[in-house]
Amino acid sequence: MISMDCDILVIGGGILGFSSAYHLKSQNPDKRIIVIDKNSGPAQGNTAKSEGAFRNVFASETNFLLADSTIDWFNHLQSRMGYDLKLNYIGYLWLFSEAQRRRLTGVLDTMRMRGIELRTMGKEELRESIPDLIMDFQGDEEAEMMGLEPVEVGLFAPKCGSVDADAVCRAYEAEFLRLGGEVKYGTEARRLLVKPKEELGISGEPFIWQEKHVAGAETTKGVIEAGTTVVATGVWSEGLLNPIGLESMMRPKKRQLFVFKDPKLGGLMNIRGLSGEGALPLTILPTSGVYLKGEVTEGSIWLGCADNLGRKFSLEEDPQPEKEYYTNNIYHVLVKYLPCFADLRPMNMWAGQYAINSLDMTPVVSPSPGMIYVGAASGSGIMKSDAIGRIVSAEYAERKEAELFGGRKFRVADLGIATRNVEKETFII
Amino acid sequence: MISMDCDILVIGGGILGFSSAYHLKSQNPDKRIIVIDKNSGPAQGNTAKSEGAFRNVFASETNFLLADSTIDWFNHLQSRMGYDLKLNYIGYLWLFSEAQRRRLTGVLDTMRMRGIELRTMGKEELRESIPDLIMDFQGDEEAEMMGLEPVEVGLFAPKCGSVDADAVCRAYEAEFLRLGGEVKYGTEARRLLVKPKEELGISGEPFIWQEKHVAGAETTKGVIEAGTTVVATGVWSEGLLNPIGLESMMRPKKRQLFVFKDPKLGGLMNIRGLSGEGALPLTILPTSGVYLKGEVTEGSIWLGCADNLGRKFSLEEDPQPEKEYYTNNIYHVLVKYLPCFADLRPMNMWAGQYAINSLDMTPVVSPSPGMIYVGAASGSGIMKSDAIGRIVSAEYAERKEAELFGGRKFRVADLGIATRNVEKETFII
Repeated sequence: MISMDCDILVIGGGILGFSSAYHLKSQNPDKRIIVIDKNSGPAQGNTAKSEGAFRNVFASETNFLLADSTIDWFNHLQSRMGYDLKLNYIGYLWLFSEAQRRRLTGVLDTMRMRGIELRTMGKEELRESIPDLIMDFQGDEEAEMMGLEPVEVGLFAPKCGSVDADAVCRAYEAEFLRLGGEVKYGTEARRLLVKPKEELGISGEPFIWQEKHVAGAETTKGVIEAGTTVVATGVWSEGLLNPIGLESMMRPKKRQLFVFKDPKLGGLMNIRGLSGEGALPLTILPTSGVYLKGEVTEGSIWLGCADNLGRKFSLEEDPQPEKEYYTNNIYHVLVKYLPCFADLRPMNMWAGQYAINSLDMTPVVSPSPGMIYVGAASGSGIMKSDAIGRIVSAEYAERKEAELFGGRKFRVADLGIATRNVEKETFII
Repeated sequence: MISMDCDILVIGGGILGFSSAYHLKSQNPDKRIIVIDKNSGPAQGNTAKSEGAFRNVFASETNFLLADSTIDWFNHLQSRMGYDLKLNYIGYLWLFSEAQRRRLTGVLDTMRMRGIELRTMGKEELRESIPDLIMDFQGDEEAEMMGLEPVEVGLFAPKCGSVDADAVCRAYEAEFLRLGGEVKYGTEARRLLVKPKEELGISGEPFIWQEKHVAGAETTKGVIEAGTTVVATGVWSEGLLNPIGLESMMRPKKRQLFVFKDPKLGGLMNIRGLSGEGALPLTILPTSGVYLKGEVTEGSIWLGCADNLGRKFSLEEDPQPEKEYYTNNIYHVLVKYLPCFADLRPMNMWAGQYAINSLDMTPVVSPSPGMIYVGAASGSGIMKSDAIGRIVSAEYAERKEAELFGGRKFRVADLGIATRNVEKETFII
């Protein structure tokens, strides 16, 4: 067993841990910064299991800023710094029913005023772009019995797309290591150390009247004491925070991905008039929560479903996809809108977990004495990862504002729990 | 096993469940309303384990309104409706160090402007009222080494005191039964039923594209279907909400009470110049989180401690008090401020659990389809119980405003999760 000291201990080698570690190290080159992770390499928690979709389309100014600047950073990382992130601007395409369209009018206006590029597409245009799409169920008794809503309008957003989350995380790791950061894999934090700020050296400390702070962690490889501990353990955060009575503002929720590759889906890989990439944008079907995208690099379709009421919150070490969730549930609605999926079964599937913050669907960067907790990214942590890492670094430096990539400013305290000041995100998939 | 239908099923026969049930029934006398509880009687979860202290002193306007109107209701319930609630206006007395006083100046001004009666007490006045209190540690090397802060000022609030929480809960139950409400004890909700709003009668429902709602609960005594299900299960709420993916906005935390009865404490039962009740107000010592009150009816002192960083969040079915928490921790600081406790050991002790909402320390009344969740009261649910019950009833009726006891109005959506609009409570013990 080892016992070591460092200036900053980052627990969690996923995208938020490494983005934080990189920005901390680049701002504090002389500090000793160690990232630990229980897995044998980076991104092996939920980062690499994600869909890697990104969008700058959010109703909240906060989420827009976080995502929009991170997307610019992805572009910089790939085009200027030479990392192959498989960055594809395939766009997002929301397919709305008439009822959805009516509910969303105000939100869309707000987003446009903010400068988010959004293109409304009528049915004729949608038909030309995606000939495989069924938009109307007249005469389809089954669809009518199911209560499926016709597609009334499309909303295409071009500054959106797909990125290899694993590659982004590895790019941060590489840059962090290049600056002299240290990484220890196979090292799991068992518990956070809580110590009095002024130790008396008496058994029983910390006492109730003493000011306390987090002073590092006990890990499977020994104690690591740290001036500041960054907890970036995603859905596993409750395991570290609950035992010391700190709120994580998130609940773990499984999300599954199903992958399809079949000649019948050829039409979805050759979309006209949208992104220029040719592949199906990340397309969200009306009401059901089903979304799918063309994966340019492998010529496949990835499909997921944002299920809400009824899908449990629960931490699973190794969440499994449910084949019957596709065959007995998603399939029924999917095949009505996209009959090209008829009789197709996924060639691959897996599941990850989201750290869902139901309150405002916005990430948390929250200080406690000796500690910064970063997480609760609610399924959009990768697309906001760079901004979040910069905010963690600004929080460490006790700066009021963080400068996001591209120069926009962000008030650090807004993402804190005690000082929280964010709008509730209403544009949720 | 039974299967029954009702208009409203209230799960949880604690104070929030019964306050909700009573106000729902009084507003909807013709509806069938059933309260179920796993215990054999009312208040046997954490209600009867509480300290039963109440205060109208909160920094947030929301918490002030909820508590102030509920205190008036307690008075009405005892003096007009004839329930013996052991209502004693012993007051609250905060003992502040100089540093605390400085930090709080603005908050106190705000509270006074709101009409909260607060009396500042200098050291001389404190000394006359509580001769047993030590306010200065000059020359006490041990206290200086411990870093204990001298008392600089007292803040006495008279519209505060002590109530028998069990008796309040039983009063609600009696009134609810009198109106024709039904109660089933020994009946535990195992899970909430989630059904499609329009059932197709096909196996596998609810499907992802169907609108869903909560339709009752499966209990240990059979299924109870309900038009609306009120979840009022306090710290046990995660057990019902997590499985269907709803946020409870709270974490369970143990809080212990220690009871003392000894001739040495006689001085604390005969306080002069404060409440008129003679017993020690609920008195909060500086910094440590230790508080204690004189229990008028039994001539004892009740003592607790609000421990924060380091005290875990964890659901325990039968939380136990920790004797050594008193003897090895609280005692050291207590005896410095109140040497009359020297060598005393508690004659009784127990533990309950708080449903802590770290975000804003304000209760939640939050609708989901077919359901209202009420909870997250953060240790001050009893003193806000009446207002909360009225807000639940207003939420059920889809009224925008609830009328609190005494006529003040409250915007119902403010306590919802999706529509939350409350100030963070900063005046926390």
